[in-house]
Amino acid sequence: MVPHRVPRWPWWLFRASPGWASWGARRGCPSMSSRPPEVMLTQERYPVRRLPFSTVSEQDLATFEHIMPGRVSTDPAELEAHNVDWLRTVRGCSKVLLRPRTSEEVSHVLRHCHERNLAVNPQGGNTGMVGGSVPVFDEIVLSTALMNQVVSFDDVSGTLVCQAGCVLEELSRLVEERDFIMPLDLGAKGSCHIGGNVATNAGGLRFLRYGSLHGNVLGLEVVLADGTVLNCLTSLRKDNTGYDLKQLFIGSEGTLGVITAVSILCPPKPKAVSVAFLGCPSFAEVLRTFRTCKGSLGEILSAFEFMDATCMQLVGRHLHLACPVQESPFYVLIETSGSHAGHDAEKLGSFLEHALASGLVTDGTLATDQRRIKMLWALRERITEALGLDGYVYKYDLSLPVERLYDLVTALRARLGARAKHVVGYGHLGDGNLHLNVTAEAFSPSLLAALEPHVYEWTAGQQGSVSAEHGVGFKKRDVLGYSKPPAALQLMGQLKALLDPKGILNPYKTLPSRA
Amino acid sequence: MVPHRVPRWPWWLFRASPGWASWGARRGCPSMSSRPPEVMLTQERYPVRRLPFSTVSEQDLATFEHIMPGRVSTDPAELEAHNVDWLRTVRGCSKVLLRPRTSEEVSHVLRHCHERNLAVNPQGGNTGMVGGSVPVFDEIVLSTALMNQVVSFDDVSGTLVCQAGCVLEELSRLVEERDFIMPLDLGAKGSCHIGGNVATNAGGLRFLRYGSLHGNVLGLEVVLADGTVLNCLTSLRKDNTGYDLKQLFIGSEGTLGVITAVSILCPPKPKAVSVAFLGCPSFAEVLRTFRTCKGSLGEILSAFEFMDATCMQLVGRHLHLACPVQESPFYVLIETSGSHAGHDAEKLGSFLEHALASGLVTDGTLATDQRRIKMLWALRERITEALGLDGYVYKYDLSLPVERLYDLVTALRARLGARAKHVVGYGHLGDGNLHLNVTAEAFSPSLLAALEPHVYEWTAGQQGSVSAEHGVGFKKRDVLGYSKPPAALQLMGQLKALLDPKGILNPYKTLPSRA
Repeated sequence: MVPHRVPRWPWWLFRASPGWASWGARRGCPSMSSRPPEVMLTQERYPVRRLPFSTVSEQDLATFEHIMPGRVSTDPAELEAHNVDWLRTVRGCSKVLLRPRTSEEVSHVLRHCHERNLAVNPQGGNTGMVGGSVPVFDEIVLSTALMNQVVSFDDVSGTLVCQAGCVLEELSRLVEERDFIMPLDLGAKGSCHIGGNVATNAGGLRFLRYGSLHGNVLGLEVVLADGTVLNCLTSLRKDNTGYDLKQLFIGSEGTLGVITAVSILCPPKPKAVSVAFLGCPSFAEVLRTFRTCKGSLGEILSAFEFMDATCMQLVGRHLHLACPVQESPFYVLIETSGSHAGHDAEKLGSFLEHALASGLVTDGTLATDQRRIKMLWALRERITEALGLDGYVYKYDLSLPVERLYDLVTALRARLGARAKHVVGYGHLGDGNLHLNVTAEAFSPSLLAALEPHVYEWTAGQQGSVSAEHGVGFKKRDVLGYSKPPAALQLMGQLKALLDPKGILNPYKTLPSRA
Repeated sequence: MVPHRVPRWPWWLFRASPGWASWGARRGCPSMSSRPPEVMLTQERYPVRRLPFSTVSEQDLATFEHIMPGRVSTDPAELEAHNVDWLRTVRGCSKVLLRPRTSEEVSHVLRHCHERNLAVNPQGGNTGMVGGSVPVFDEIVLSTALMNQVVSFDDVSGTLVCQAGCVLEELSRLVEERDFIMPLDLGAKGSCHIGGNVATNAGGLRFLRYGSLHGNVLGLEVVLADGTVLNCLTSLRKDNTGYDLKQLFIGSEGTLGVITAVSILCPPKPKAVSVAFLGCPSFAEVLRTFRTCKGSLGEILSAFEFMDATCMQLVGRHLHLACPVQESPFYVLIETSGSHAGHDAEKLGSFLEHALASGLVTDGTLATDQRRIKMLWALRERITEALGLDGYVYKYDLSLPVERLYDLVTALRARLGARAKHVVGYGHLGDGNLHLNVTAEAFSPSLLAALEPHVYEWTAGQQGSVSAEHGVGFKKRDVLGYSKPPAALQLMGQLKALLDPKGILNPYKTLPSRA
């Protein structure tokens, strides 16, 4: 099992937000009393205008209170955490938080909001990266936090059925006790809700092996904008009875309906996990290593991550993590998960022997015990943290043809020159997913102008995706055109109009602002 | 590699159609000249009325001829094979066959048909089981047969991009030469088109291991009803830029758009394949064997099929295939596919030893060479053929909770008594997919009345699916309500109205007739 590596609300993240240079200096060990500076309101930072929704009246509050007695909050202190994203980059000003326990309650709420033209922001664990999970203005926050009941687990088929607000880590624990694992794993698993994972089509660390949620989710219960409960909560592995409606809601970020329950297929728990950390002389060798490793490790390969030398320097400098192999231009982390420790070790050993002998890798180390595995994973997983300590970070999450994955990093170094402190590339190479990050002493509009739209144009030139796994949310809705043709954007708009004609569900998100 | 087991247009299938008793007697070795009797027109056998579409005029034909010179056919002899399904149970009377080569041609055709209100029946290899691939009345047949170009194959990522009319078996051959396999395999692979596979969300023999097309298809190019080309033909593993529009078309059976190109992820080719054929003392032991085997074989398990004793008796009686193990109430076929023959053999050996020692299975045989593997697979794959030789066959393809999979077979035996010749159950147990078949000397309305709606009601009572993998097509559109709630059927109708407002695409299919 891969441990939960990224702490919740790490203090260094506060520094990553623009305009906090002075607060960033207090980085040692912030006490609970050293509150981070207030995040600027989204409506002040971005050129966005409130749509003509109604505002919540006393009568609305009474209706909500009738629907879910004692679970309607208007307490500003309580609402604060629900108005700000965890990266502390966007902030809404919702005045109402609703915590339903059942899909019937969600249905009653939406029917009322639909009638009253009240905007609603469905919210899971609020761990999104693109500002999709918090209000932009005063949308009602509809939290799934209390919808956290497990409905059933079938230990023959491995099918888990649960409410949308179940926390991923808790589900993991539950199914692992029964010798299964969840088909997805994320750094945010201690906070994120399964409903939010599905709504954002979360990728994560097990994607390479177990694939996307479009394949693993068997059924969904969704409440539509007008309160209709759409029960597609089948737990069948196969169901070919007409349109696969649940697919519409996977990755639609709460803009087409509110996911209230999930049926998901869990793979059997691997009996052995090993991690190899290797140095590669060039990106061409990283690619060759990937190809060879796919062939040799076959069905037991469960992760293939890469990072460049600058990433390693940064985790060394800022986090004092030692590089476990000789210095190299590139590093790869390979994880295997299988049902037979001896066989897995033999496969991995024979692959490593070949990789070293043929010069694909120049040095490497192998871990099979939990502690060492965790240490090696930390080198890859704590890059984000190290970047946060390096300065202001410009972040991109791109999907590219795997053979061109690193070209943009090289090109950007040349383009930006001394304007950037560091330009680094790392990510889920096995999935063609590059995390491109640029650091600078502080936020600068001119550096931003040198990056955007250049990065998006370059990505579009490679038929890449401007959002590989983080989604669209509020922040990327106006760069969608780089990855989707006009006919697709038009169809997205038509689907939104069909399912949510008044546009009350998670407004200002996912669809281009001019659509 | 699993060989192509079911011959194309096997002669015995002709007998399986109602009303051919006399022709069925000529079963020995039909010559090419012994033409099967004509199939009754769908509009005569079923209570279905032609919708008010236009009929094709000389001017329409001229327009089509202009769009694709020399590829417009009105030859009745040529049209015959396109009007009748391969099971020879439904027959349309289309008078026009179009064979476009490009998506632009498809776009021109649909734009014209949309303007003229002409109905269109998109057709791939015409291997469907539910009458979805042939016209009901005089719909224009739009065949993908000439759209058979491979666009690209990336041998790092395993991504294949090709036109919709590529034959599955040819694609398999192509990617296998490059050490990959297609993520799906079907008996019909020698004829079926990849576009048709995707349009019908085909399941098949590799489903257990590689999952559904909703996970494996990376991108689609689709021409909408009005001729708009929707290019979602990304070949990226990850793309989270808004609604995943391609999912709408996977399994929509050509009713929402015509798939013209497919981008699909191919898994690495296994280096070793083994098959075990085992006898189990009861269905409870079949389930326990499945559970144990999932645990022990883990990532190398690639098929878990089961059949009952009656199936084995029928393949023995009608096809003279010998049972390779002691007679048992149930048999299971387990296939492993892995990257290391030695390891795989050891895993399988140790599982078999345990299964025998603990009484889960009473006898078994193992094959690792191609010839013996084929022989063992034939026992499972030729059941359909044996049933066809046993009499008239009532066929059901149900998805059920795995632990209840066989209950319906037992219950039906009691219910039908002597009215049925044989009631058998077999199928993809690993996917919860039961093929329930009832044979009788001839078609009988009273036996049908004893079966339907009882089978569908029973299935609905288990929250099962009345179509696990065969789809809806023409034949099952009015039993959808057993597996989908009214809200889902309503949303299906709304999606149809949005994407194909005139209803010209594959009419009389997939959606309930009263929707």
